[in-house]
Amino acid sequence: MVKKDEIIQLAARAKEAAVGLAAFETSKKNECLLAMADGLEAGAKKILAANAQDLKTARENGLSPAMTDRLRLDERRIKEMAGSLRTIAGLEDPVGEKLSSVKRPNGLQIDKVRVPIGVIFIIYESRPNVTSDCVGLCLKSGNAVILRGGSEAINSNTAIYNALSKAGKSCGLPERAIILIEETDRKAIEVLLAEKDYIDLVMPRGGEELINFVSLRSKIPVIKHYKGICHTYVDEDADLNMAESICFNAKVQRPGVCNAMETLLVHKAIASRFLPSMLKKFRDAGVEIRGCEKTRSVISSIGGPAFGGKDIKAATEKDWGTEYLDLILSVKVVENLNEAVAHIRKYGSMHSDAIVTDNQKNADYFLKNVDSACVYVNASTRFTDGGQFGMGAEIGISTEKLHARGPVGLEELTTYKYLIYGNGQVRE
Amino acid sequence: MVKKDEIIQLAARAKEAAVGLAAFETSKKNECLLAMADGLEAGAKKILAANAQDLKTARENGLSPAMTDRLRLDERRIKEMAGSLRTIAGLEDPVGEKLSSVKRPNGLQIDKVRVPIGVIFIIYESRPNVTSDCVGLCLKSGNAVILRGGSEAINSNTAIYNALSKAGKSCGLPERAIILIEETDRKAIEVLLAEKDYIDLVMPRGGEELINFVSLRSKIPVIKHYKGICHTYVDEDADLNMAESICFNAKVQRPGVCNAMETLLVHKAIASRFLPSMLKKFRDAGVEIRGCEKTRSVISSIGGPAFGGKDIKAATEKDWGTEYLDLILSVKVVENLNEAVAHIRKYGSMHSDAIVTDNQKNADYFLKNVDSACVYVNASTRFTDGGQFGMGAEIGISTEKLHARGPVGLEELTTYKYLIYGNGQVRE
Repeated sequence: MVKKDEIIQLAARAKEAAVGLAAFETSKKNECLLAMADGLEAGAKKILAANAQDLKTARENGLSPAMTDRLRLDERRIKEMAGSLRTIAGLEDPVGEKLSSVKRPNGLQIDKVRVPIGVIFIIYESRPNVTSDCVGLCLKSGNAVILRGGSEAINSNTAIYNALSKAGKSCGLPERAIILIEETDRKAIEVLLAEKDYIDLVMPRGGEELINFVSLRSKIPVIKHYKGICHTYVDEDADLNMAESICFNAKVQRPGVCNAMETLLVHKAIASRFLPSMLKKFRDAGVEIRGCEKTRSVISSIGGPAFGGKDIKAATEKDWGTEYLDLILSVKVVENLNEAVAHIRKYGSMHSDAIVTDNQKNADYFLKNVDSACVYVNASTRFTDGGQFGMGAEIGISTEKLHARGPVGLEELTTYKYLIYGNGQVRE
Repeated sequence: MVKKDEIIQLAARAKEAAVGLAAFETSKKNECLLAMADGLEAGAKKILAANAQDLKTARENGLSPAMTDRLRLDERRIKEMAGSLRTIAGLEDPVGEKLSSVKRPNGLQIDKVRVPIGVIFIIYESRPNVTSDCVGLCLKSGNAVILRGGSEAINSNTAIYNALSKAGKSCGLPERAIILIEETDRKAIEVLLAEKDYIDLVMPRGGEELINFVSLRSKIPVIKHYKGICHTYVDEDADLNMAESICFNAKVQRPGVCNAMETLLVHKAIASRFLPSMLKKFRDAGVEIRGCEKTRSVISSIGGPAFGGKDIKAATEKDWGTEYLDLILSVKVVENLNEAVAHIRKYGSMHSDAIVTDNQKNADYFLKNVDSACVYVNASTRFTDGGQFGMGAEIGISTEKLHARGPVGLEELTTYKYLIYGNGQVRE
């Protein structure tokens, strides 16, 4: 039974805490972050014991090896979590930054300044390190945070939360500025998604099902970290060695993440030169290929030793819109750049897409017409990441068009307000 | 009967048009805007004839004089609409602006640039000039727009739309870049609010009921132009002459708009000096006063000639949260600055709030702790307006915290994307 009133009460107290936190000095926030980092390391034994409990339950419930790996903590991972908090302490404080300043003819001075959003509700799955990353980023950006991790990590999350909370308290962090919902029933999520007076933003991180669950029910604005159906288009004017290296990296280096390539598009003029060795390299790395008709005929016309004599599975309509998150790749030969862009607009998820080309005009066309958060020329889509972008840390990758697009770091966790200074001005 | 498929088809075509429009050159957009301005003036006779039809229907339906006034067009108003389009043509094009640019240690160049949002659906009531203002702002910011005005203005809106559309066509504007939904049944709105693949943003402008109707049903992100429950707090260290002039302007200059003052907060130390003449001035201007106990006792203790011997109506709890949009004002005497800020946080709508004070410390506290889009020191809240802020024009005032806060102008009608330039970079 979810205690609805108690959960709403928690959100109301987070809103109060957010008021105090918004006025917190940068030095005070950094002091909290450093104390939290120390607290994690000092509490490592307790955290690992709690994690062992979660791992035991995971074994009993037959959790997949990939999920179990994401769940597992060790001394090194705890040190990394502490390191992230110290990195965040070293980042520029976004709060108070003056975004613009104008003096109007009537003498009014209008300053646009960054301010915290308020209370952020983060719903996530498996990885317990998300707990401390989110606390660090929300604290530094002056926001109160309500965390709701998955049931599979509840003991780990609680132990991490306790260590962070104790450290925060010792530095005078407002009580309830960080809240962990220990109720892992989804009813608790539903209750909070209606509390628009207390919560300003909801960020779901996890599988498609969780994100749809949240989006459908939320009365509060949602920034989704949704699917990444990422493409690489190899142009007729591409350096084919570079293309092979970029495509291989985008697919194989870490296939289970949102910025990995799911579909390879190849210009017909270079298909028979590029595809045989590229696809062989993929096959050798254990990648299952699903090709369009032309891809299959290119391969079968060469056949034999070049590709191990094997045929390629046919890609279905469904393949073009699938985020495999696995060693599977769909491959399509296109007539031209236009068809590549049209394919990405139709089947992509506006996350990250790349062109490999030495032709500046084609690169510019691709950059202008692909409507994705991150559009690459001659680089792997795997770089879409707050750390890689120089933001220091990220809370996720937004696939929204409003407010935040791509990596969500400290700046994206703020909004702005106008401060207007007058000396008696009235409107005519 | 709403033709659902036809309406969805229109949205799909707007999405296609948005692709072309996003790549439109600034000079081309300005050419369209100027042609549209000429088109409005050339078509004035037709527009006024259509408006006369709407006014006739309004009379038959007993529309209020205020609503009828908003609906009425004349030669001068059409000239103003054309003037707005010319002003928008003269504004800086936000599309393509480089918001940041970093070179990473691995050589990747990451540029963050402004791009159009895509397709914007604007739902509005009465004033037909909104039709041309929205077309102008969406066109300049590279967005396709779907307009759905109120049934009371359908003939005027259609005539204005036809003039704009014809001018756009003559300049090569993509077909369906501007769409008017002629179906004034709300079913048409409901159909479109589900089309998240074709529409990127919904902006309702109008009464509370319309905005709630839209927010509840939309599957698409909504930026609301919601209530303005605006406060002016007269501090103990205020220049009382300035305070009187600011408060009078904020309430009386145009009471029916969202940035007019609805509640006056007065520090107890100056209440008996400030309130009698202030409230008398309000009464003389026909403002009905609803006061807290202290306000009433200050007035009755002076009584007699100073305030015409009349008592003041008691404000109820409901008054503090009411947007009157009329010559009514609630007045509260507060213990101190803290109570004023707490009152605004509790009852305000995060729109526009002002402090009148000569005390810098109090001004800073107010600016920091009032969580509204526009926070004023020593000026009237009536300045919250895109034109007054120097944005040239606005599509509304956002009461949201995400994406856009306060006046929504050209910049707020854009999003951004990252353009990443490499020379073969892959992730380690």
